[in-house]
Amino acid sequence: MSVTAARGFRAAGVTAGLKDSGKPDISLVVNDGPSAAAAAVFTSNRCKAHPVLWSEQAIKGGTARAIVLNSGGANCYTGPEGFAATHRTAERVAELIGVGAIDVQVCSTGLIGRLLDEGKVLAGVDAAVEALSPEGGHDAATAIMTTDTVDKQATVSGDGWVVGGMAKGAGMLAPALATMLVVITTDADVDASTLDGALRAATSRTFDRLDSDGCQSTNDTVLVMASGASGVVPDAGEFTEALTKVCHDLALQLLADAEGADHEIAITTVSAASEADALEVGRSVARSNLFKTAIYGKDPNWGRILASVGTTSAQFDPLDLDVAVNDVWVCRGSGVGESIDLVDLEPRQVSVTIDLKAGDQSATIWTNDLTHAYVHENSAYST
Amino acid sequence: MSVTAARGFRAAGVTAGLKDSGKPDISLVVNDGPSAAAAAVFTSNRCKAHPVLWSEQAIKGGTARAIVLNSGGANCYTGPEGFAATHRTAERVAELIGVGAIDVQVCSTGLIGRLLDEGKVLAGVDAAVEALSPEGGHDAATAIMTTDTVDKQATVSGDGWVVGGMAKGAGMLAPALATMLVVITTDADVDASTLDGALRAATSRTFDRLDSDGCQSTNDTVLVMASGASGVVPDAGEFTEALTKVCHDLALQLLADAEGADHEIAITTVSAASEADALEVGRSVARSNLFKTAIYGKDPNWGRILASVGTTSAQFDPLDLDVAVNDVWVCRGSGVGESIDLVDLEPRQVSVTIDLKAGDQSATIWTNDLTHAYVHENSAYST
Repeated sequence: MSVTAARGFRAAGVTAGLKDSGKPDISLVVNDGPSAAAAAVFTSNRCKAHPVLWSEQAIKGGTARAIVLNSGGANCYTGPEGFAATHRTAERVAELIGVGAIDVQVCSTGLIGRLLDEGKVLAGVDAAVEALSPEGGHDAATAIMTTDTVDKQATVSGDGWVVGGMAKGAGMLAPALATMLVVITTDADVDASTLDGALRAATSRTFDRLDSDGCQSTNDTVLVMASGASGVVPDAGEFTEALTKVCHDLALQLLADAEGADHEIAITTVSAASEADALEVGRSVARSNLFKTAIYGKDPNWGRILASVGTTSAQFDPLDLDVAVNDVWVCRGSGVGESIDLVDLEPRQVSVTIDLKAGDQSATIWTNDLTHAYVHENSAYST
Repeated sequence: MSVTAARGFRAAGVTAGLKDSGKPDISLVVNDGPSAAAAAVFTSNRCKAHPVLWSEQAIKGGTARAIVLNSGGANCYTGPEGFAATHRTAERVAELIGVGAIDVQVCSTGLIGRLLDEGKVLAGVDAAVEALSPEGGHDAATAIMTTDTVDKQATVSGDGWVVGGMAKGAGMLAPALATMLVVITTDADVDASTLDGALRAATSRTFDRLDSDGCQSTNDTVLVMASGASGVVPDAGEFTEALTKVCHDLALQLLADAEGADHEIAITTVSAASEADALEVGRSVARSNLFKTAIYGKDPNWGRILASVGTTSAQFDPLDLDVAVNDVWVCRGSGVGESIDLVDLEPRQVSVTIDLKAGDQSATIWTNDLTHAYVHENSAYST
């Protein structure tokens, strides 16, 4: 159900012929209201794709009536023609559903540096509007897939209202393995400002902490639209919690489907002097290719973990760090701890715990291992 | 010749049995003077190995009479016992050659988190002192190898004096694929303060710009010792230039021998507003796994380059960047430039040029591609 779990939304996923595979490639989600409140966060990459440049401007009024997403081409680094294509796509959607172009968000994903076939996109928009349905969530979630092997959907129910979402990609809002696109809908009656605060709170603790390969996409977008169709104004805290749950669920689905990964790794830094310290430490380990290849090799190599921790500015005593892998404290006081033979790295889920002994803050960063399959997929992708 | 090219030095490389392979594993370089001036730079990792903690203190007086290096164990994260082992190694060398322990630098490389067999190390020191010879440079260069496939040596002649050096590893002073150890000797008469300035100038433009895999070793050390045996006091600028040449030569040898690499990549950022901007941009591209896998796949994927540039704080217009791969300007004005089919990525040497159009500064960062062999070597290394 995902984006059509909430009342007031219709969605569709159709095939416009943008993908060589002939699989669905245009998604459309329309908010029939009564409210048009919306909020979005975008990639922090300064080299942004045209749909991001468009959508960033368009969301400023705090409303959106529709979002159109295409796979099969990122429309990034395609010059003024590329921006015009994004603009005309928004205009076509707007015209067909009777709103202003400014109320249409646009997302693209796929190869960058190649102009989209605008004729195909516009014909796809026509077909998607025709196909719009209150049961269209699944089709929409399928049509945004690129290297994804499964579609990603999540739903959480509140008291008389629902939050549902769909996602594609495997990465994060800042760093990204591949472009991450997320659309979330709710029938709760939430104003744009509350939506924006809730979305930033939710993404900062979920997608922002997913660091699959340290790279940062040009197209990442997370949009939330509220129809208000339930007539219920939820408690802001409860709403943020539900939104965070949907984001968390989708984030872990992205992690599980990361390109070529054998392991899903949760790196938790505990007893940090600040949450920022805990995040810095987690990210530094998540970005160490030596650590990531070690996990692929089923080697609980805590030395490579300490070496990464040592590159950060976090508060700690370099001679008194503890590290656990899958709850076995293989490093105690920056020296040898329990036997590494006690660590079983066969399962897909891996936990790393780093004890900084410097305070009472903690945070978790999720990442994947670095595998032959990752190298294969990313060396062969565009040729 | 390397470290024994300059007059006043003796060296040796012997087998102490620290390596399972039975290959040489202890190197010793002794400065017979008359001068004992020395300078060193070390890893900026805060989690440093015991020999680094020792040597950092020992070099503070600006003198060194000898350096002893072992492969077959990094002596890192080995607790107080590990530090004591380093100290006793320095004391043994000092006693045998008749100097103070404070004048003996110590380096270790190999697996971390495992205590060295101190008995073997000390016996190896005894054998190395026995074997010291003014022709021992090659043996010394061989005994520091770990995953290196060839030894690395370089010599540059000045006007009546010589600078020679040896290196092991594949990485850099800050980030490192594997520990980098470098010993440089000269018979020029250079005081400690001038040596220190020259060494920092030389390493900042050579080893510091070599970023093979973005990881940062716990053991990296670059030491320079001046015997003054030539009796010549060189011009400081000429000496710095010669030292930089030796460092540059050794850095490129490290790059060429990086674990599992198929390509040596020079990333040059031009027309930057500052050298710092140029370096930040080069490093960000050098650390992008998506870029590095693309080069492995012989794909001149400029989109992945722009996506990395976009993550930096350098001054540029995101919509007006040019990128060349092997001198073909595949990206012009942040859009499609010359055909990527013109780029031949079969050769091992790759150049990437990024034009920021923001000033007149430039800098080059060297890196390698990310290959199946890298994943293999680093996932299988310690198990």
